[in-house]
Parts: sequence; structure tokens; C-alpha cells
Amino acid sequence: MKHLLISDPTLRDGSHAVQHQLSLENILFYAEYAEKVGIPILEVGHGNGLGASSLQLGQSLVSDSELLENCRLKLTNTKLGIHVIPGFATIHKDLKNALDIGVDVIRVASHCTEADITKRHIEYCRQHDREAYGVLMMSHMVSAAVLVEQAQKMESYGAQAIIIMDSAGALLPSDVYEKISNLVQNLNIPVGFHAHNNLGMAIANSLEAIRAGATILDGTLRGFGAGAGNAQLEVLVAVLHKMGFDTGIDLYQLLDFADLAERTFITTPHINSVSVISGLNGVFSGFAKPVERIAKEYNVDPKDIFFELGQRKVIAGQEDFILEIALSLSQKGLNISE
Amino acid sequence: MKHLLISDPTLRDGSHAVQHQLSLENILFYAEYAEKVGIPILEVGHGNGLGASSLQLGQSLVSDSELLENCRLKLTNTKLGIHVIPGFATIHKDLKNALDIGVDVIRVASHCTEADITKRHIEYCRQHDREAYGVLMMSHMVSAAVLVEQAQKMESYGAQAIIIMDSAGALLPSDVYEKISNLVQNLNIPVGFHAHNNLGMAIANSLEAIRAGATILDGTLRGFGAGAGNAQLEVLVAVLHKMGFDTGIDLYQLLDFADLAERTFITTPHINSVSVISGLNGVFSGFAKPVERIAKEYNVDPKDIFFELGQRKVIAGQEDFILEIALSLSQKGLNISE
Repeated sequence: MKHLLISDPTLRDGSHAVQHQLSLENILFYAEYAEKVGIPILEVGHGNGLGASSLQLGQSLVSDSELLENCRLKLTNTKLGIHVIPGFATIHKDLKNALDIGVDVIRVASHCTEADITKRHIEYCRQHDREAYGVLMMSHMVSAAVLVEQAQKMESYGAQAIIIMDSAGALLPSDVYEKISNLVQNLNIPVGFHAHNNLGMAIANSLEAIRAGATILDGTLRGFGAGAGNAQLEVLVAVLHKMGFDTGIDLYQLLDFADLAERTFITTPHINSVSVISGLNGVFSGFAKPVERIAKEYNVDPKDIFFELGQRKVIAGQEDFILEIALSLSQKGLNISE
Repeated sequence: MKHLLISDPTLRDGSHAVQHQLSLENILFYAEYAEKVGIPILEVGHGNGLGASSLQLGQSLVSDSELLENCRLKLTNTKLGIHVIPGFATIHKDLKNALDIGVDVIRVASHCTEADITKRHIEYCRQHDREAYGVLMMSHMVSAAVLVEQAQKMESYGAQAIIIMDSAGALLPSDVYEKISNLVQNLNIPVGFHAHNNLGMAIANSLEAIRAGATILDGTLRGFGAGAGNAQLEVLVAVLHKMGFDTGIDLYQLLDFADLAERTFITTPHINSVSVISGLNGVFSGFAKPVERIAKEYNVDPKDIFFELGQRKVIAGQEDFILEIALSLSQKGLNISE
């Protein structure tokens, strides 16, 4: 039976879905169950990762330190993971602090063409004997060859795995197969895939990544995550077990946990029309909440904002464009009431 | 550009989701928009089809006659379709009445091994110059060879297309490919596919059906349908257009319509733990609502009922088993509170 490594970013990608307002109580409830059902890696934090809590990106209800210190106490077999985007997370303040608290797995992420910026963060983690992965976001925007070149840089910095994110939920299974198989052939470290469900493909794309040679998959409970959400963890585990893979997770306990978490604090995303436009036009899923808010404020159609964000190829961190586009659409009179 | 025929059973499969209580007002609102956005076939009726309104299966709020007469008035370019299971729908009362009202497409359905029972209904429709399809339900329960044999019978009765239903949402893409490609190779009429989303595969399985040669796909707005729902129509159309297929549907109008319908009466299903167990064990999605109700009444876990229904290979129409299983689980003391 072939083993797959499941990493669970419910408490990190799901932060986007609640504008980073997860309570410590709910986080610790989740961490306790994650340990019980056998989740291998639990990733926690602000939707945009360590150090990203800010006025522009949204302030977390719980600070990084409080979050990590408390989660650290709950986890023994489950590894504690974080998402780190250099630029938001400084090395000598944020990253050092997280390592001091005892984080196990650090996933250092950049836009799919910016691997260079991850060098010092990855090296720092490796010098301090922690597991460090390289993460390439918005992977639909470049070819398989560019992803290979960027991933090879991360490997050379010491990354122990590469995770490819379909941040906009824009990939179809054939795209996933091409990208992942090229990476698997050209790297000496494991490859993983992080799906979004904008086009209803999160589970299918995850399976296709496995078929192409990936051995790490991200999934979130009920799909809780930015925009249309992620690969739904309990569905992913059910299908993988049905196909004969081993994940080390107890499926029946996971299903009970999912029901309980949904009754407690997990909201279940669904694919609305804005998600479809976001997926079709390749726009970052994390923009869903701010676009919704700003569209209402300026009385413009959120679908038009997403379409325009796609035209301009705006990426995470460029949230200012949302306001600018809404303003310009509203001045053109392209508002909802027409 | 290759054309695909989309059939929309939102107002029929979605009836399961609201225990057949769709109001005439909502139905007509939907029919009007379906015509406007260019839906080729709109299928309406009780979840279990024509004549199925009953105490055991749930009574429809709107009678077949009232429904069909009113929809007939709204539709010009969009064809009016019905789902017909012989046994529920008699020929000389139900079917004759529907044909008299002017139904365009009659989809005569049976369990995947019972094509024989569709003979007289299909022949009757063809004698009266109507389009008649054969539908094989619960297709995961038999091999590709059996489906071919059953579909060939329907073809010999005069069926003008064969629709394969994954009623339990139990199929994986490789299963779909095998089943559909065998049918396409061995029939002289078009083949279609009707997905359910229990394992998150509704869109991916629909695409796989196309790749295997299918030319007809079912999809429902927001996935509104039994259990975990169907292939989400607006997502399916978006992906098909992205892949270069033509459906004749205006995607942007469809997205607006989906938003509006959701604000009005469409509930969006999601994959809960019961759906996963139903998909894994191959149990009919239409059982979700009655199982939920009976589980609550007998204080047993609905997942245990679904598991047991799967063990006993219970099929649609055998609703009596739900009560029997709940009673037996409750007597064994396997209730939720433990």
C-alpha cells in the first residue's frame, strides 16, 4: 500500500474564509482532534501566513505567538506547520520566534516566478534543523518549465519538498498532470499539490497530481478555505483509501470530527458565480472576501472586479488594485443596479 | 467547435433536496430563465419522476399535471423533459397525460439491470412521435458489459439516447471512462452521463464521460439535487467552454441566473459525512432526506444507516428498508449518544 503525506491547512487557508477571525478556543479544539484522528501536519496562522496580520491584509484575532505557543502544547504526533511568505514574515523577528516556539514544518512560499526571495528563509530553517518546504503559488500563471526552474532553485536552497499551489483554482486535470510530472522528473525531493475548488476540480486535480507522481496533498476539513475552498479533506481521504492509498488518518473518526467542526465553527464554502469567474480568469482565491466587501461598498458587480483583476494579472499582496478597479468600474457606471 | 447537449434536471433532482416541495412560482421563475439563458432541455417533476408523488416517496406540492401544463406555457426553445420510472408512472394515465400536455423529451429510467421494464414506455413515446431516452440508474453496481447489454435492449425498444446515472456518486473517473467508452463503442445512439457529487467527482466525472465519447451531460444549478447534489451546471458550462466545447448556453447570463436562483429558492448542497459514506458504499443519493429524518427519530447515526443500506445493496424504491435498518440499529443500542 502506497503512503501519501497529508498536510492540513484548514486553520490557515480557512482563515481567509472568516477574515482571519478564528478564535483560540476553536483553533485548540481543532488541534486536539487533528492529533486524535491522525492528521500528519497541521498548518496554522493568518491566511497569508506568518507575520501577515496587518491593516491591509486583515488583522488576525489571535497573534502568531499566542497561536503557535498554544498549538505547540496540543500537538505530539501531529507536526505543527506554518506558511511563510518572505516580505510578510521577517527572519529575525517572525521566523526566529516561530522556530523558538517549536514549529516543525516551515513552508516558505513565493509567487511562482519569485523563488529567489525564499532563499534566506529556507536556509535559516535548515540551519536550525527544521523541515523546510518550498511553495510556488499561483502556479497556473506559468509553464511547467518555469515551475521546474523555480522549484530547482528552492531545492538548491535546501527545500525538502516542493508544493505547487493552484491558488486560483484555475487548473484542469491535464494542466496538473503536465506540471506535476515535469517537476517529479526534474527534482530529487518530494512534490506536493494544494488545490482550490473554483472549477469543481479540487479532488480530481489532487488525484491527478498523485497519478503524476506527487506524494504530498493538502486538504481542509469541509474544504474550508479561501474563495470556493480547498480539496475537502475527508472526501480526499475517503477517495484515496478507496483507491488503495494509506494516509495514516482514521477516516471514520475524521468524518465524525468534520461533522462536529461544522457544527462548531467551520463554514462550508461553495462554488458561487464569483468563484467561477475567479477560476476562469486565474485570480487569487484569497481576494474573495475583500472583493465582496468592496463591491458592496461601491455598488459594482464582484464578478466584474474579478474579471478585471484577471485581465491585469494581479497577484496576492496587490490588494490595492481591488479598490482601484472598483472605483474605476463605479465611475464608468458599471454598477449592479443596471 | 464540438457541440454538447446539456440537460438540466434542477427542478427534478432538486426536488429530492426539498422533499418535493418546490412551489409553482419558483418552478415558473426557473423555467422562464432557463429559456432566456438557452438551456436546451429542462427536466421537471417529483425527484423519482412522473407519477411518483406518494406517501412513501413523498408527496409533491404541485401535481404533475399542474406542473407540466404551466411549464409548457413558459418554454419555446427549451425542450420540456420528464423522468419516467415504469412502476411509478403508468402508461395510460400518467404518460398519456404528459404527452397530451406536450412534453418533448421523455427519459424512461430503470435500475441498471432492469431495462426490460422500460420497453412499453419507450415504445409508447416513440409511437406518439416524442423523443425517448433510456436511463440506467445506479450504474456503479454493474460492469461495463452489463450496462452495454441493458442499453442495447433500450436501443432496440427505440430509445434515441442512453443516459448513465451515477445515482450514488460512487464512480471514480477511471470507472466512468470504462463504462462510457464501452457504451459508445457498442451503441448507435448518443450516450449521456448524470453525475452525483458524493466523492467530489461530479465535474471531473462529467469531463471524463465526454473524453470517453459521451455527448449529453446533466447538470443542475448550484448542484441542487439529491444528497451531495449533481454536477454544478454553471461550473460545468464554464469548464466546457474553457475547454473549447459549445453548449449554446450564455455563461454570463447563467451565472447571474444562478446567483438570483440561490437568493430565491435554490439551496446549495455540500458534501457532508453522510454523503461520503453514501458514495463509498454506493447508496442512492435520494435516500439522504428520509435517512436524515428517520435517523433523528430513532436516535441512530445516519452514517450507520447508509453503511447498512450499502451492505444490503438497497436500491431506489426500497425506502421501507431505511425504517427497518434504523429500528434494528436502535434495538442494538447503536445510537448516537454513545
